[in-house]
Amino acid sequence: MKKQLKVGILGATGAVGREMLRILEERDFPLSSLRLFSSERSAGTELSFKGNAISVEKADIGSFKGLDLVLGAAGNDAAKRFAPAITDSGALFIDNSSAFRLDPAVPLVIPEINPGDVFLNFGIISNPNCVTVIALTAIGALLSESEPESIIASSYQAVSGAGAAGLEELTRSMDAYLNGGEYPLLVFDRPIACNLIPKIGEADRDGWTSEEMKMQNEGRKILHLPELRVSCTCVRVPVMRSHSVSLTLRTKKRISLSRARELLSAAPGVRLCDDTAAGVYPTPLSVSGQDEVIVGRLRRDLTAENGLCLFCCGDQLRKGAALNAIQIAELVFG
Amino acid sequence: MKKQLKVGILGATGAVGREMLRILEERDFPLSSLRLFSSERSAGTELSFKGNAISVEKADIGSFKGLDLVLGAAGNDAAKRFAPAITDSGALFIDNSSAFRLDPAVPLVIPEINPGDVFLNFGIISNPNCVTVIALTAIGALLSESEPESIIASSYQAVSGAGAAGLEELTRSMDAYLNGGEYPLLVFDRPIACNLIPKIGEADRDGWTSEEMKMQNEGRKILHLPELRVSCTCVRVPVMRSHSVSLTLRTKKRISLSRARELLSAAPGVRLCDDTAAGVYPTPLSVSGQDEVIVGRLRRDLTAENGLCLFCCGDQLRKGAALNAIQIAELVFG
Repeated sequence: MKKQLKVGILGATGAVGREMLRILEERDFPLSSLRLFSSERSAGTELSFKGNAISVEKADIGSFKGLDLVLGAAGNDAAKRFAPAITDSGALFIDNSSAFRLDPAVPLVIPEINPGDVFLNFGIISNPNCVTVIALTAIGALLSESEPESIIASSYQAVSGAGAAGLEELTRSMDAYLNGGEYPLLVFDRPIACNLIPKIGEADRDGWTSEEMKMQNEGRKILHLPELRVSCTCVRVPVMRSHSVSLTLRTKKRISLSRARELLSAAPGVRLCDDTAAGVYPTPLSVSGQDEVIVGRLRRDLTAENGLCLFCCGDQLRKGAALNAIQIAELVFG
Repeated sequence: MKKQLKVGILGATGAVGREMLRILEERDFPLSSLRLFSSERSAGTELSFKGNAISVEKADIGSFKGLDLVLGAAGNDAAKRFAPAITDSGALFIDNSSAFRLDPAVPLVIPEINPGDVFLNFGIISNPNCVTVIALTAIGALLSESEPESIIASSYQAVSGAGAAGLEELTRSMDAYLNGGEYPLLVFDRPIACNLIPKIGEADRDGWTSEEMKMQNEGRKILHLPELRVSCTCVRVPVMRSHSVSLTLRTKKRISLSRARELLSAAPGVRLCDDTAAGVYPTPLSVSGQDEVIVGRLRRDLTAENGLCLFCCGDQLRKGAALNAIQIAELVFG
């Protein structure tokens, strides 16, 4: 019988935190107790888990004593602030923020790709960036056949990447578009309804945004390929909760389309939906609420001998965040 | 004094036809008469031009006598059906459909790129595909510096590419998303609000859609580069009337970022909006109703020595269709 864990969720009232609750319940995760933590502002909120209301506590340095596992769904500041207290208490901290992702002492894990890395942890394991998880889950399936040389990616990122406030702002923006009226721009720099925002995160001196550099930096660590080159363009689109990515993958060895289809069909966490002529292709709406990354639009790259083009969609809150974190916990404690 | 032309618009009641009317008026195009043609279904509609109502006539083989210029804003079938009658009548047919674009006897023209080609016509000049016009207007500005080797493109295409019915369907789809209720899927295969549809046109045996192959096939003709290689992924997005394209351009010679900025700043038909850190970047909403293609997010491609990444937006109904056609007419008759 599996050990029953004492689990905490840091940042439980946000979009990712609430999704973690749902997934723990769906997967019947082996827990003996569940505590929920948030900032002072959201403390006292009641959230439901398996039919019971749980009152959210204000997170504090002393909050984590006795826990086995803390799932982090808060921002970088909270992750950095509470990580020492969590690890000192003996709990494993599986963190969805970007605070520790590139720390050499912290594994960065997609369970379908580098499961073994979880065991090298010193109390913290990081969950990768959402677009990175979704793109690499698709691409990872192909890499048993050949090492990748480079990736060119253009993303179509849902507003859920900006949290519950992003979801709310798209709704208000659509309503204002249809019915007129004003609403405050709180999360996005521009109206998001009927628009695109090709800037996610801060830009560096070379013009790359922080979001765009994650696929190269995190991809190198996850794939154990320190030379991997990725040019990624990240664009926010008026979609609720699933990210899509248009990918051109160049590999050292040529992978045939039929072999790519075989590999994608057999890959865990991936569903191949690829018969464009028959109208079978991934869409963000169809993948919302699903656990798998859907891959389609598979084609030979017309610009390079060893290239493949594909299009994939994944639920940003699930595989892009909460689900991947809980899969990591299942690996460690399973 | 310029010759005053007798002008007709074929397909005048559609989204592109109406935009042609607006642009002829705005630019004070030198015309002595204007006749509007449509299918039987829309005949009798009254459209306004410079304060006068013009009644739309049913297009017929005998409709075009005495005209100097017919602007085509109808589909392929109508273009093929009426082209012989138009050219026989002595009028120049500038056609926005894809019917004649790859015909060796028909020039395919972006005035900023290959203006001289207009004079090789035998009565028909084709207007390129909308995404192709927008992407190549941006890229064309750089090609005085080096020949291109390949282009990788991912598009974010507005619903106006599917005509007035596409605009209507996005509005109804957003309303249904917000308020519940059903609406018929008339133009798109899936709901388009809060969604993406990564299939535009029909798919071939290799998985490429007709829309995707246009950028390579039309690009080769427009740029006079029969070997140009383009991998394009075309995606419909819930945006009203401006297309966006994420581009990775590889050139034979390396083009520095500063030289690329100089060229883009000086290029006709292009506006450089590129200071990402300061929040200056193109968006489809900001380019709607504008004549220029807005270019930003300029970066060195991290995956190839001679590559550049950029993001551009252009109004699909204007530069992507009606404006480009009227610019061609101005070249011929100016």
